[in-house]
Amino acid sequence: MKESCGLIGIYNNKEAARLAYFGLYALQHRGQEGAGIATWDGKKIREHRGMGLVAEVFNERHLSIELKGDIAIGHVRYSTTGASLLRNVQPFITYFKGLHLAVGHNGNLVNTVELRRELESKGALFQTTTDSEIFVHLAAHNLTGHTIEEALSIACSKVKGAYSLLALVNDKLIAIRDPYGFRPLVIGRLGTSYVISSETCALDLLEAEYIREVEPGEMIVIDKGNLRSYFLENRQEKRRCCIFELIYFARPDSTVFGKNIYITRKAMGMALAEEAPVDADFCMPFPDSGVYAAVGYVQRSGIPFETAMIRNHYVGRTFIQPSQDMRDFGVRMKLNPVKDMIKDKRIVIIEDSIVRGTTIRSRIKKLRELGARELHLRVSCPPIKFPCFYGIDFSSKGELIAANHTVKDIERFIGLDSLYYLSLDGLIKACGGEDNFCLACFNGDYPVVPSKEYGKLFFDIFVG
Amino acid sequence: MKESCGLIGIYNNKEAARLAYFGLYALQHRGQEGAGIATWDGKKIREHRGMGLVAEVFNERHLSIELKGDIAIGHVRYSTTGASLLRNVQPFITYFKGLHLAVGHNGNLVNTVELRRELESKGALFQTTTDSEIFVHLAAHNLTGHTIEEALSIACSKVKGAYSLLALVNDKLIAIRDPYGFRPLVIGRLGTSYVISSETCALDLLEAEYIREVEPGEMIVIDKGNLRSYFLENRQEKRRCCIFELIYFARPDSTVFGKNIYITRKAMGMALAEEAPVDADFCMPFPDSGVYAAVGYVQRSGIPFETAMIRNHYVGRTFIQPSQDMRDFGVRMKLNPVKDMIKDKRIVIIEDSIVRGTTIRSRIKKLRELGARELHLRVSCPPIKFPCFYGIDFSSKGELIAANHTVKDIERFIGLDSLYYLSLDGLIKACGGEDNFCLACFNGDYPVVPSKEYGKLFFDIFVG
Amino acid sequence: MKESCGLIGIYNNKEAARLAYFGLYALQHRGQEGAGIATWDGKKIREHRGMGLVAEVFNERHLSIELKGDIAIGHVRYSTTGASLLRNVQPFITYFKGLHLAVGHNGNLVNTVELRRELESKGALFQTTTDSEIFVHLAAHNLTGHTIEEALSIACSKVKGAYSLLALVNDKLIAIRDPYGFRPLVIGRLGTSYVISSETCALDLLEAEYIREVEPGEMIVIDKGNLRSYFLENRQEKRRCCIFELIYFARPDSTVFGKNIYITRKAMGMALAEEAPVDADFCMPFPDSGVYAAVGYVQRSGIPFETAMIRNHYVGRTFIQPSQDMRDFGVRMKLNPVKDMIKDKRIVIIEDSIVRGTTIRSRIKKLRELGARELHLRVSCPPIKFPCFYGIDFSSKGELIAANHTVKDIERFIGLDSLYYLSLDGLIKACGGEDNFCLACFNGDYPVVPSKEYGKLFFDIFVG
Amino acid sequence: MKESCGLIGIYNNKEAARLAYFGLYALQHRGQEGAGIATWDGKKIREHRGMGLVAEVFNERHLSIELKGDIAIGHVRYSTTGASLLRNVQPFITYFKGLHLAVGHNGNLVNTVELRRELESKGALFQTTTDSEIFVHLAAHNLTGHTIEEALSIACSKVKGAYSLLALVNDKLIAIRDPYGFRPLVIGRLGTSYVISSETCALDLLEAEYIREVEPGEMIVIDKGNLRSYFLENRQEKRRCCIFELIYFARPDSTVFGKNIYITRKAMGMALAEEAPVDADFCMPFPDSGVYAAVGYVQRSGIPFETAMIRNHYVGRTFIQPSQDMRDFGVRMKLNPVKDMIKDKRIVIIEDSIVRGTTIRSRIKKLRELGARELHLRVSCPPIKFPCFYGIDFSSKGELIAANHTVKDIERFIGLDSLYYLSLDGLIKACGGEDNFCLACFNGDYPVVPSKEYGKLFFDIFVG
Repeated sequence: MKESCGLIGIYNNKEAARLAYFGLYALQHRGQEGAGIATWDGKKIREHRGMGLVAEVFNERHLSIELKGDIAIGHVRYSTTGASLLRNVQPFITYFKGLHLAVGHNGNLVNTVELRRELESKGALFQTTTDSEIFVHLAAHNLTGHTIEEALSIACSKVKGAYSLLALVNDKLIAIRDPYGFRPLVIGRLGTSYVISSETCALDLLEAEYIREVEPGEMIVIDKGNLRSYFLENRQEKRRCCIFELIYFARPDSTVFGKNIYITRKAMGMALAEEAPVDADFCMPFPDSGVYAAVGYVQRSGIPFETAMIRNHYVGRTFIQPSQDMRDFGVRMKLNPVKDMIKDKRIVIIEDSIVRGTTIRSRIKKLRELGARELHLRVSCPPIKFPCFYGIDFSSKGELIAANHTVKDIERFIGLDSLYYLSLDGLIKACGGEDNFCLACFNGDYPVVPSKEYGKLFFDIFVG
Repeated sequence: MKESCGLIGIYNNKEAARLAYFGLYALQHRGQEGAGIATWDGKKIREHRGMGLVAEVFNERHLSIELKGDIAIGHVRYSTTGASLLRNVQPFITYFKGLHLAVGHNGNLVNTVELRRELESKGALFQTTTDSEIFVHLAAHNLTGHTIEEALSIACSKVKGAYSLLALVNDKLIAIRDPYGFRPLVIGRLGTSYVISSETCALDLLEAEYIREVEPGEMIVIDKGNLRSYFLENRQEKRRCCIFELIYFARPDSTVFGKNIYITRKAMGMALAEEAPVDADFCMPFPDSGVYAAVGYVQRSGIPFETAMIRNHYVGRTFIQPSQDMRDFGVRMKLNPVKDMIKDKRIVIIEDSIVRGTTIRSRIKKLRELGARELHLRVSCPPIKFPCFYGIDFSSKGELIAANHTVKDIERFIGLDSLYYLSLDGLIKACGGEDNFCLACFNGDYPVVPSKEYGKLFFDIFVG
Repeated sequence: MKESCGLIGIYNNKEAARLAYFGLYALQHRGQEGAGIATWDGKKIREHRGMGLVAEVFNERHLSIELKGDIAIGHVRYSTTGASLLRNVQPFITYFKGLHLAVGHNGNLVNTVELRRELESKGALFQTTTDSEIFVHLAAHNLTGHTIEEALSIACSKVKGAYSLLALVNDKLIAIRDPYGFRPLVIGRLGTSYVISSETCALDLLEAEYIREVEPGEMIVIDKGNLRSYFLENRQEKRRCCIFELIYFARPDSTVFGKNIYITRKAMGMALAEEAPVDADFCMPFPDSGVYAAVGYVQRSGIPFETAMIRNHYVGRTFIQPSQDMRDFGVRMKLNPVKDMIKDKRIVIIEDSIVRGTTIRSRIKKLRELGARELHLRVSCPPIKFPCFYGIDFSSKGELIAANHTVKDIERFIGLDSLYYLSLDGLIKACGGEDNFCLACFNGDYPVVPSKEYGKLFFDIFVG
Repeated sequence: MKESCGLIGIYNNKEAARLAYFGLYALQHRGQEGAGIATWDGKKIREHRGMGLVAEVFNERHLSIELKGDIAIGHVRYSTTGASLLRNVQPFITYFKGLHLAVGHNGNLVNTVELRRELESKGALFQTTTDSEIFVHLAAHNLTGHTIEEALSIACSKVKGAYSLLALVNDKLIAIRDPYGFRPLVIGRLGTSYVISSETCALDLLEAEYIREVEPGEMIVIDKGNLRSYFLENRQEKRRCCIFELIYFARPDSTVFGKNIYITRKAMGMALAEEAPVDADFCMPFPDSGVYAAVGYVQRSGIPFETAMIRNHYVGRTFIQPSQDMRDFGVRMKLNPVKDMIKDKRIVIIEDSIVRGTTIRSRIKKLRELGARELHLRVSCPPIKFPCFYGIDFSSKGELIAANHTVKDIERFIGLDSLYYLSLDGLIKACGGEDNFCLACFNGDYPVVPSKEYGKLFFDIFVG
């Protein structure tokens, strides 16, 4: 399960690139494949992009010498399973009729194929497979007779899907959130500087003060020291914020869609304890996924909290293959159970979600081998039955175990004594009870219907 | 606070180097400065060593091509503040009168200066500042008329201090633990292979079965498929195991000195709850140091458990300097509090130890700024008042805050509403109640007295 | 003085990428800034590009795994003094209406500004500052109702200037040379494979047989195993081949424009000996520039040949600064005179050209210090008085010493006893006597007049 | 054919490490496997060593920050075919009884096995297989009651073979040349600094003034600003300088053993022209080996000089394998003949030496394929019939083609119309006519007889 991307924008700061760097650092959980920063140096756009973690992509020289300027935008990108491409690492940069543009994007459009075909028929050439490039082409094709703000607004009226977007256009910083507000985007202030970020955890690291969200369907333009707000014509009455940001993606110390993640996840755990109590010796999370729901579960149920699966903190990326005898090796690399705590115990385990169910199955098997007496799994969201078209990579529906199997089947497949998923109602209540979430992955109710040709994507066009 | 080192030995396995690699991976918390592996290929010793984390030092080619052989030893080394040296990364390798030797060592000797002087007067040349090299020289000077086992035994009779040692001598794997057993060393079996390791967590990762500890004062020799046991002449009646391995160093999923670390730390937290109860809204650890004691504290006290300080899991090593305005930046990089959980709350915080007190002071200050009402710190060991000469780098006594200040002073310095250290009795009871620990850092009672010239070390001889 | 670029194309070879690699290796003298290879794998284009020398950019994995396919084009790019950009390293890749395109280009267009403006007014977005991208946009805008061959032909009718171009379009390999034939491009055969290259030295390395030049104004299309030839409408009656390829750029073992370089340069030296004989103790070249002309000079004049300036063969790129006392250090790093050969000698030195005159001045000064009695410089081309707009980077006219100074002035500036430049007639005769060269840098007679806006280039748009 | 090593020493210069770096840069032809520099910072020795070329091993930080001090020694090391070891890269560093030592060495000892055995029986441990370490051990074992100068002098009385040696001992710079003076070593002055170097080309680069050679059997000690000279007891009456330094190894712009290399090699070529004239169209060298002898040959014979084999100046180290169809690929990579110059020509080729004859055979075959009518090879030294024990790696005698074959056989094997080797008399005359060269590789007359056990070396002890 992978989040699309993370965004950071800095306006009016002598160390804009450096702040963008640390902002991306705080947003690293939103994408580990690649990172890029673009700055406006007063005359032109400077950029550095690379594959890998933020700390690997940039060095001191990039930040202090090359990325000059008072305005910066930065982007972290998620890791695909297939071929990864430096070419696709954002921000996307271009120069067009006197405008220098850098654009970064979080989310996923659902009418990409049609838009590309139409743009190509007008002579547009594409160099990447990113949605950012589509925005830029659409804006460019509408610049004649329009300001860049208008052109971007027209572009937004043509694209369908999820997008939080940051653009650097000469000395302007522009932030846009799609009409439904699928993906988060927040505004902060740091002295006389502005900071735009996917999550508030980046504001915290930079010691910026949280002001408010960029609203769904809102375009923020910051220039000449001022922040102006516009609304897109196709702004929707109801938000459709991705509830998975609350369940899984956003950092627990962030506030997203106006909700504190930590407290929200605790509430999900409490709801689970109410809906599906169980008599057990203790309750533990699978680190790091279920920790906060587990904290809520134990507070409501009174069962003792333990953290008897130990995470190896130094596990970085090793490229060494295990030997052939090492079965289930990947599972052991990340988490090791405390044997003496497992034997003969009745255990409630809290997880935030199940996608394919294979990793959790290996872990349960390991706990059985160590002598666990009873193993009860509680999941802090309903079964994921439908694919996401707005930026969460559950992969194809075929791989979603709950799409084709009953809860009983899954319980048996994983090898549990009992399995319970939080009800949709319980989840919504834990999230505040309002009707403003996209719940499509649970109920198939898609706020924006993907075009017929969705999925005929160009992801394999270039391999480098 | 830094642990000396971690050791792994593999005997009779076609993939000895690969197993050693993953063993070191599991022991990475014991040393992040450098790593090395040496193998016996049937004719000579092969080696690869480097600065950095295990995953950075070795690549597939090292393991599958260069480090041939069925026997391997590996070593991870701690990070010093000053100049680091590839030269000092172990194993130490030499060739002497037909014997190929590789030696790795965990611990610290206290008569190094005298031994080096004596050896130099006999013409010995030193290339490193490691204790391993001293062992090798001592053994070499006693080889005439003796077997290598005897020579090593004589060497052990001359050195004073703490050492767990692994040696590869042609086709023999030799493990030695000092007469007091300061540092841990355990034996495991994997099919027809033997595994020797500092902690059992490495056995778990390799799926090796735990057999027993190497005993204090014991020398294990494995060759021709057999494991033989000898005892050093100066074996002591009482063990003096480093209690700090239990409090802080060893991984929570390890069993060390026959104690499960997780359960032991929980017991420390329970003892704290008994000795120093406090009326509070919740109890939380400072990740990752106090987690397990906190679990014990809440179980005994009934106060709710929270984990309201969030660790950034992607924090790797960044070499980028923060901007000048970023105060207390390092603190925020690692941990970020969940603001909404802190305001107006009475909080009990659990820590495993306080050395200088400066980091914890910054964290407490941050919590105050966020509006915490009361902050009570509970530490799961007594005040550290004396330096360690056996391998734990508390640095000099001057920097130990408890050496020169009362608990009340420290409470004020850190800015707490209350501070309580676990009593020595409480600690010992939590560790099983036996009289077999080195407690010198708490009570100044040193099992082995350092030589007069201790400290006149050669740590800065070479700078590279 | 820098050459633009080098090109290699391989058609119908299982190891197309590998052959392209070695072809670029042979063409490395034409560009050291960056290199790239693109292949057609049957479904899409694969690419790898990077900054640096060919041997630094590619590794075995790129060639054997990533760059699959039977067709490949490769490109080496020259080093600019200012900011270098991975973005600008060719081939330029795009996907457009079912066509996968990769384009590499050698030469320089002179109506770039107008073309970009026109294309942008139609909505084209540019990502690089390369002429290759302009070609691709022009072709794309003319694809509707035309084949790619026709579209490229239309593109050629719009661009003005110098271009040798290689394009990979799905399974076609297309080679085009501009109507004047400024830059070289040759065709070779290797069994059932075709090889297209800037110079024949790449054919030699690959053991390909030289067939013929791509003619000025010719488009070669290779697909389905066949090679077809078309001519551009604006093909010129007279060629205007860059005579500087013969004087300086091309490798001495190449045949370019039908001339063997080695023999041609020898003929220039012979002409110099006839036009400007001098009584001297010996004649020597400045390695490596004047070697072949010097060989001709000594054969015609009878003066002994010496090579008394020694080149350090291991001089690679060092990034270490000399100490402050090391004057003229760069000069000594590359060439060291054999002192005992210089003292009291009357020496004729042969050079192939003088641009700014500063390097040669330092060398002459060094020879004076070593006691040379007389120093006579003979240059194997006329004074360079005019800038080149077709791909040779003499930089701006202001820096061409001969543009503003007489030969007598230059002689005095450099500190010579005599200076003589080969006459234009002598040069033309040495090159075969025909009227088919561009001589603009000597006589200002430009075959294609640059547009008014030439020079308002976008070279600094992106800095990364 | 490989030279052992190159040495540089700098005394009393604020930028000692930087000068040592550039000195090694000038001596790079003497060793490409690894490089190291050690400095004395006033308190201790600092060092940096690495595998690869000088420009790869050091960066600006090493030179400006880490390698502080006014005294430096540096070393470049040759490339072995088998396993290369960072461990063996010099200088060798140790600390012993208050003395900090760094030693670098050029040459080869012939009683290594005996010396190691004797030292080990006294308890010495060896970490490398370098002769430098043997010197250090010998000196250490004789330090009691002696100064370091005396101890080194005693060491020199025990070792047999070839050595030019530089030692840094606290604030002293010591240079020693063996009693026969096999390997070169020269002294230069740069203002108030001293420079010691293997060849004068390093003095030239640093703009140091050449003073004189270190004499055979001389020990130079520089401290407190003064240079003192001592002579070893076993100094020999006659020098035995390695004549191969003149024929092949030293750089042509160096003065070695008091001879200018360029002029000496020209004289060899002249002697060849006298001894073995031939009627031919032209004479050419195989770059870069025979260039200077070829210059002499053409001056004496009157045959035209050509340089019709072109060297690819950008050939660096490529690790890409050629495809299977690329026969004789390595030959073509380095040198490409100018085809039009070869066809139907009678050619005299000048080479400096033939070891195995296989490379030259491939080149001759290529020239035949291009249509050469006659190919006459003239070699500027006699047949190499005996191995060298003093530092030149002809490998084993079995591979020396002239050891087991007549000149006629070799002529046939290579495929020549005629082959002639310069006579020993002719060679000696060209080198000045004096009886002070080691000629063992030609006549088997070894000045120092290797010990019986020579060759039982430990080169494979460690593989890393």
